[in-house]
Amino acid sequence: MSKIIEVKTPANEKNQRQANENRALFASHGLRVFNLISSPGGGKTTLLEATADRLGNRLGVIVGDLATARDADRILRHGCQAVQIETGGGCHLLAGQVRVAFDKLDTTGMQILIIENVGNLVCPSAYDLGEQAKIGMLSLPEGDDKPAKYPTLFLRTDLVVINKIDLRPVLEYDFERVYKDCRTLNPEVRFLNVSAKTGTGLDAWLSYLTGDK
Amino acid sequence: MSKIIEVKTPANEKNQRQANENRALFASHGLRVFNLISSPGGGKTTLLEATADRLGNRLGVIVGDLATARDADRILRHGCQAVQIETGGGCHLLAGQVRVAFDKLDTTGMQILIIENVGNLVCPSAYDLGEQAKIGMLSLPEGDDKPAKYPTLFLRTDLVVINKIDLRPVLEYDFERVYKDCRTLNPEVRFLNVSAKTGTGLDAWLSYLTGDK
Repeated sequence: MSKIIEVKTPANEKNQRQANENRALFASHGLRVFNLISSPGGGKTTLLEATADRLGNRLGVIVGDLATARDADRILRHGCQAVQIETGGGCHLLAGQVRVAFDKLDTTGMQILIIENVGNLVCPSAYDLGEQAKIGMLSLPEGDDKPAKYPTLFLRTDLVVINKIDLRPVLEYDFERVYKDCRTLNPEVRFLNVSAKTGTGLDAWLSYLTGDK
Repeated sequence: MSKIIEVKTPANEKNQRQANENRALFASHGLRVFNLISSPGGGKTTLLEATADRLGNRLGVIVGDLATARDADRILRHGCQAVQIETGGGCHLLAGQVRVAFDKLDTTGMQILIIENVGNLVCPSAYDLGEQAKIGMLSLPEGDDKPAKYPTLFLRTDLVVINKIDLRPVLEYDFERVYKDCRTLNPEVRFLNVSAKTGTGLDAWLSYLTGDK
């Protein structure tokens, strides 16, 4: 792990100040806030659609993409508020962008805010958005070698969600390898195996989000 | 597309100079050189294993990852040369890193060099490595909405490979949507549908690499 270099630029210091402001703002609204990070196509939006179906207006979503508002449009149809950030080519969200989006949300009745970051296992891991916890999402088709190959994210994740487990009958996947590699980077990490498509594991996911045991 | 901003930094200018030098160097060795870009877990390494099985020492591979030499180790077992670049957290390869790796290869008998970039649909698209063409790789489990959401890559790809088509019986995927979104960004783009796992489409892939029709 000695090769990983933390980049401390003026841009990142400015982001950290804004992230700290966001964190205080989110707390003043009584919100639990999560930063959801995965590869492109890991299933973030599908999981958020299923989450919105169950939480309704208790959930708010901020979605980041390089281009298009497709993901926010998808989530909006499931009964929660969603605001899209188009980064215009940017590879990760910044705390300032999240603040602008947050101001567009009506937080009445909202308990949980999920920030769906740009699909990217690398860059989003370095930028605090003011969240309570980072959630790393993997999916079976990506293969079981990702935590060791993308350590900057898995050093920082409170929870690792392994999605698309409905594909287990047709794909090889060594769950124990994933657990071991993640725990080497962060011994406190928790895991949830889900299928956003079929609903498997969603009760445990909702318990994590709401803080209920 | 008007929101996409090209970042022209001194670092990128330096990279471009090195990329131009690489291109001249590769040409002096008579090599066809490709920059292969996909999401994490898209199947780049599996495709290169299958390619090495067929091309042997006519193929050379340079592999980029944040950490571990697992991918180069995998490819080496298939009878071609492979050199790993560990970026130490970096989200894309740079032309200077490729030059250092290239100098470790024995190019005797080599005709094709494939640079497997860091798994990331965003950042690698902005950095020329001296390649002849960029190849964008998608895979069925990622979903058919990726070209429109990650336009900076698909503006620049000569070929789009759609991998993991063996999963078509269990996954929805609208190929026509992918073709249309890619052609909107680049009307000249070509497509290949493959399964690196089963071998479907590999003859056409080898013809593309070798330049045979």
